[in-house]
Amino acid sequence: MNEEFVSRNFKSDNVSSVCDPIMAAINAANSGSAPAYGGDDFTRKLQTVASDVFGTEVAIFPVTTGTAANALALSQCVPPYGAVYCHETAHIVTDECSAPEFFTGGAKLIGFPAADGKIRPEQVAAAVAYAVDMGVHHVKPGAVSLSQATEWGTVYELGEVSALAATAKRLGLPVHMDGARFANALVHLGCTPAEATWQSGVDILSLGATKNGALCAEAVVFFDPARARDFERRRKRAGHLWSKQRFVSAQLLAYLEHGLWLDNARHANAMASLLAEGLSHVPGASLLQSVDANEVFVALPEATVAALERQEFAFYRWPLSAPPAGVAIRLVTSYATPRAHVDEFLAAAHSHART
Amino acid sequence: MNEEFVSRNFKSDNVSSVCDPIMAAINAANSGSAPAYGGDDFTRKLQTVASDVFGTEVAIFPVTTGTAANALALSQCVPPYGAVYCHETAHIVTDECSAPEFFTGGAKLIGFPAADGKIRPEQVAAAVAYAVDMGVHHVKPGAVSLSQATEWGTVYELGEVSALAATAKRLGLPVHMDGARFANALVHLGCTPAEATWQSGVDILSLGATKNGALCAEAVVFFDPARARDFERRRKRAGHLWSKQRFVSAQLLAYLEHGLWLDNARHANAMASLLAEGLSHVPGASLLQSVDANEVFVALPEATVAALERQEFAFYRWPLSAPPAGVAIRLVTSYATPRAHVDEFLAAAHSHART
Amino acid sequence: MNEEFVSRNFKSDNVSSVCDPIMAAINAANSGSAPAYGGDDFTRKLQTVASDVFGTEVAIFPVTTGTAANALALSQCVPPYGAVYCHETAHIVTDECSAPEFFTGGAKLIGFPAADGKIRPEQVAAAVAYAVDMGVHHVKPGAVSLSQATEWGTVYELGEVSALAATAKRLGLPVHMDGARFANALVHLGCTPAEATWQSGVDILSLGATKNGALCAEAVVFFDPARARDFERRRKRAGHLWSKQRFVSAQLLAYLEHGLWLDNARHANAMASLLAEGLSHVPGASLLQSVDANEVFVALPEATVAALERQEFAFYRWPLSAPPAGVAIRLVTSYATPRAHVDEFLAAAHSHART
Amino acid sequence: MNEEFVSRNFKSDNVSSVCDPIMAAINAANSGSAPAYGGDDFTRKLQTVASDVFGTEVAIFPVTTGTAANALALSQCVPPYGAVYCHETAHIVTDECSAPEFFTGGAKLIGFPAADGKIRPEQVAAAVAYAVDMGVHHVKPGAVSLSQATEWGTVYELGEVSALAATAKRLGLPVHMDGARFANALVHLGCTPAEATWQSGVDILSLGATKNGALCAEAVVFFDPARARDFERRRKRAGHLWSKQRFVSAQLLAYLEHGLWLDNARHANAMASLLAEGLSHVPGASLLQSVDANEVFVALPEATVAALERQEFAFYRWPLSAPPAGVAIRLVTSYATPRAHVDEFLAAAHSHART
Repeated sequence: MNEEFVSRNFKSDNVSSVCDPIMAAINAANSGSAPAYGGDDFTRKLQTVASDVFGTEVAIFPVTTGTAANALALSQCVPPYGAVYCHETAHIVTDECSAPEFFTGGAKLIGFPAADGKIRPEQVAAAVAYAVDMGVHHVKPGAVSLSQATEWGTVYELGEVSALAATAKRLGLPVHMDGARFANALVHLGCTPAEATWQSGVDILSLGATKNGALCAEAVVFFDPARARDFERRRKRAGHLWSKQRFVSAQLLAYLEHGLWLDNARHANAMASLLAEGLSHVPGASLLQSVDANEVFVALPEATVAALERQEFAFYRWPLSAPPAGVAIRLVTSYATPRAHVDEFLAAAHSHART
Repeated sequence: MNEEFVSRNFKSDNVSSVCDPIMAAINAANSGSAPAYGGDDFTRKLQTVASDVFGTEVAIFPVTTGTAANALALSQCVPPYGAVYCHETAHIVTDECSAPEFFTGGAKLIGFPAADGKIRPEQVAAAVAYAVDMGVHHVKPGAVSLSQATEWGTVYELGEVSALAATAKRLGLPVHMDGARFANALVHLGCTPAEATWQSGVDILSLGATKNGALCAEAVVFFDPARARDFERRRKRAGHLWSKQRFVSAQLLAYLEHGLWLDNARHANAMASLLAEGLSHVPGASLLQSVDANEVFVALPEATVAALERQEFAFYRWPLSAPPAGVAIRLVTSYATPRAHVDEFLAAAHSHART
Repeated sequence: MNEEFVSRNFKSDNVSSVCDPIMAAINAANSGSAPAYGGDDFTRKLQTVASDVFGTEVAIFPVTTGTAANALALSQCVPPYGAVYCHETAHIVTDECSAPEFFTGGAKLIGFPAADGKIRPEQVAAAVAYAVDMGVHHVKPGAVSLSQATEWGTVYELGEVSALAATAKRLGLPVHMDGARFANALVHLGCTPAEATWQSGVDILSLGATKNGALCAEAVVFFDPARARDFERRRKRAGHLWSKQRFVSAQLLAYLEHGLWLDNARHANAMASLLAEGLSHVPGASLLQSVDANEVFVALPEATVAALERQEFAFYRWPLSAPPAGVAIRLVTSYATPRAHVDEFLAAAHSHART
Repeated sequence: MNEEFVSRNFKSDNVSSVCDPIMAAINAANSGSAPAYGGDDFTRKLQTVASDVFGTEVAIFPVTTGTAANALALSQCVPPYGAVYCHETAHIVTDECSAPEFFTGGAKLIGFPAADGKIRPEQVAAAVAYAVDMGVHHVKPGAVSLSQATEWGTVYELGEVSALAATAKRLGLPVHMDGARFANALVHLGCTPAEATWQSGVDILSLGATKNGALCAEAVVFFDPARARDFERRRKRAGHLWSKQRFVSAQLLAYLEHGLWLDNARHANAMASLLAEGLSHVPGASLLQSVDANEVFVALPEATVAALERQEFAFYRWPLSAPPAGVAIRLVTSYATPRAHVDEFLAAAHSHART
């Protein structure tokens, strides 16, 4: 319907449609009446399946946006007078219109710089030392939040996660992981979901599915169910408890049960790798970040970028605090990105570079 | 799957499945990529269709729960130090886990008693007079919120709405309508959507569809779009802005465009009328409220109620502050309630009454 | 300066001046520099003195308004999704402009009716049973708050407090006491501060001094210091941590150390008793409440009330939900009320009653 | 009483006592009863006096801490989904335990770096451009807040304030000034209060007096009284409306009426200038900021600092993100700093530098 969207779209993975198995699951869930508010069988089964997937008993709470998942998760572990330590360009800082502040009742997000999107244990330690020194006048250290994959398309290695978590633990802070693109990170790491999370010290995960093929499915996962005390009331009073919750749970079941989440992510990552590999051979192009997941940040000459835009490739020009030569753009692939679009993009980029 | 739900279910209209036209619309919306966050064609079209339906230019914002719709709507028109005047058993008072207080930043809900669920202009006037007398120590009069249909299955006549709204206007208060069952009320009134809302003085409507056949579709409707300033940010920071918003908008389009909402509500109301009519002939039964929409409150002897429960009719025993003789129960019908279930229920009730 | 206030003033105890010993203490505290933010010797000493006065180790936090004390105390023990059970005309409900909702982040105050201002254990139990039945949709039972003395000038007997607290304990709820007029209640009860509070099951006390002779001194007292964890941050972020805190602490020391609080309250109560005794002999007058502390609620003929007002006696006409014959007025006495004013009031009332 | 405080104290101006004229005013205000909650004559007169002092009709609201003044002021002009642009080390960012987030309901403080403590118009413009580009996902531009004098002891020149305000105005943002040390800045600028505030584009001022000789007196000053709509309710529900408000108003009257505020600030600034001048001759000392008001930031060799500490000079070692050679310390003078303490400090510093 919309002209823009007949084009080859690398704007975000959230412009994608719903993948077939998930749409099938939604349709299948629609048979007769069912108990409301999560009393249904799909939601019950999800607890078991998620626990199996993560190799430990988890408490999992479906919601329908990443912002809700993150803000609810943080509100559960950070007091109104607390600090959340995170990257300065984390989604919770720049893209959620102060939802974390709203849900926590006023906690402060303290963002650290890091060119590759990965915060460091020593940044957390220094911030906590400062807070301790300031005492009651400053916000109280509350939690560490990291994004996996990061906003810059990079992925924390397991050792990096566990080092960060070890510092957090030592300082008494829970660790939250914003996993809007968790499956993409997992595929990159090639490890188990358990290794990527609780075995590396993560306490709470915002698990995303919407960007990776779902219609509207995210979840807050507590690796220690005792941490989830009263969480259902937080979800309810935020308006995120659905009466027909089976339709979210069914999406997550389809997503997790038979490896769909990994298959989808694998494709998305592969398309991003192809883009990166191809761009590395384009004269004048320079990759700005390691392409670990499904996002490519690349600098190209202004003329090339303008030409690509004219050819109906959709993507964002990306603002950088330290801009490179040329123009920085972001390309995002998804489970639904056709190989042909990647090839066309690379061919076009090559062609403009030559001229 | 769940035993309870093979039974004849009168617990709530939210236990129903998704009606076919809406499920078809969801499936149809799933074609290729689309702009995220409401930049899509479905959402754009919804503005037009809703404006046509209500006979005036409205600003309509889809969300996915009634609690979200109500709390967001109130937060838009009541300051943190304000009062919301409503019925003492309004959904916003008893069933939303303090979502209105959360979203408004601490406003106070002041509930009035009224046996039929309908608050009166003089109650609002008296409460405002008290507040004015108390001055800065008390919350500031903020808004009037009425439920249409009410929590007690009754429906405000148009004259009742406009009298309430006239008092509110005179006192400088906006009028919010919780329309979780708005279609049921509309069908009962037999008037236009315009007459039922802005022409009677309603400023903001929480429009429900989920209980009436949708999967997850509610909306906040502003009859003066200027009132909606920054509302999209409130929705965003509450985690209620979907990336794939077309799938909510598509539901609302299917709901509103060709009279589906009225057809569904008409059936639900008819089933409730049949129940009420039938029960009026059951010895020992006494209807507790006028059955205007799709809810029936009836008192029956304990033995009858227990017998019905044993026969796998599902419904709620309902707590009343002034309990009648016998046991009060609530029966809710929906677009999906089979005529057979109604007949079976009545037959069973008659049969037990005779014994 | 203000004409109104040369009159005989029974409007409230908060119109009184500062009593001499407390003003002297403020002046005495002003010698040289001192550590800011409560690091001073006065504040340190207050911990010891308050612990002695209450016969147990307490954590005491000075603030400067009763609203701050109450709202901070409740925010410490009730979650944002919690309920506070209290009297429907409690100060926290009607006179604090939603400060409790603000400080708690949205908790709901659930007010019970009770003609004598004293809530009953069975009201708490019924409300909790309702909440449990409603589950996640309703606010979670959070705390019980009682006012001692009550807003109606009555005083809970020790047995009444402990019965309420026993029910609260059984249901897992902490007990908060709004003691804006705690000294007045204490003098009436003739018991120790310990008996009136923690030995009767009170967990947190808002201790008032301003109405009883201080300039600006209230305090939140925790009878289990472990409950006070992070409370100092709540106070700080509400703007209630003074840099020159010694000047509040000095007031409370003067108040508590040598019985000043009881002496002041004894006088106030005595003046109220005289008023009540005298009024009981005035034809046409009828006392509306037991006069246990320093407030008198009395109904008088309109003509009498109007005449008293013309004679420059200052007091409030008091709105009652069930108005008596005549006009209800409230008379409040304080540590500073001269015996002569009481005698003059009674003489005038008698004189008008005769005419 | 406290040993530390017999020493020569340069820790902060808030460790000072109350100056004699203000203590005298408090004592004088204590004559008989007076209307509560700001209905008194002192509070009324303050409106007039403040309007005279600022050369325009202002609305002035006394409170008792700077944190309350700042957080209330911001909550009045920034929505919960708004951004406050300020310096990264502003008091509102680092020293108020998230009070601004609490009072605004979740607004975000966006701090800019600036070595001299003064934010620049282009920083505001860039941040707003970024927010506009991000749209609904980001917080909405809400207000600019600058500190005058700054946290670094510098003072914005009038042209700097008006340039900042002009940019803010152009972008639709109100300008808040944190004037905890406003009198110190005013004395430095040598201009009128009007020139320093509304004539330079400031909309709301947090006016501090406590650090400059008061017991507990700050105020929120609105230069357009229409901006103050409902502000009194915000103050009330934050627990900052005193019943005996005359005692705060009386302090502010004494402060403003006959130039006391300027006299006190002049002395404090003069002592800081002497310190700076003296330190500039100390070998190994290097001043880190222009000493415009009453704060001196200086780097000294570790040995010198340690020796000064041993000699019972009290001051803070100050953390800097870009630490100089040696140790950075902060020295704050007040209205009460004796010339002798300054001389002794300089003599000691010289003496250690020589060794």
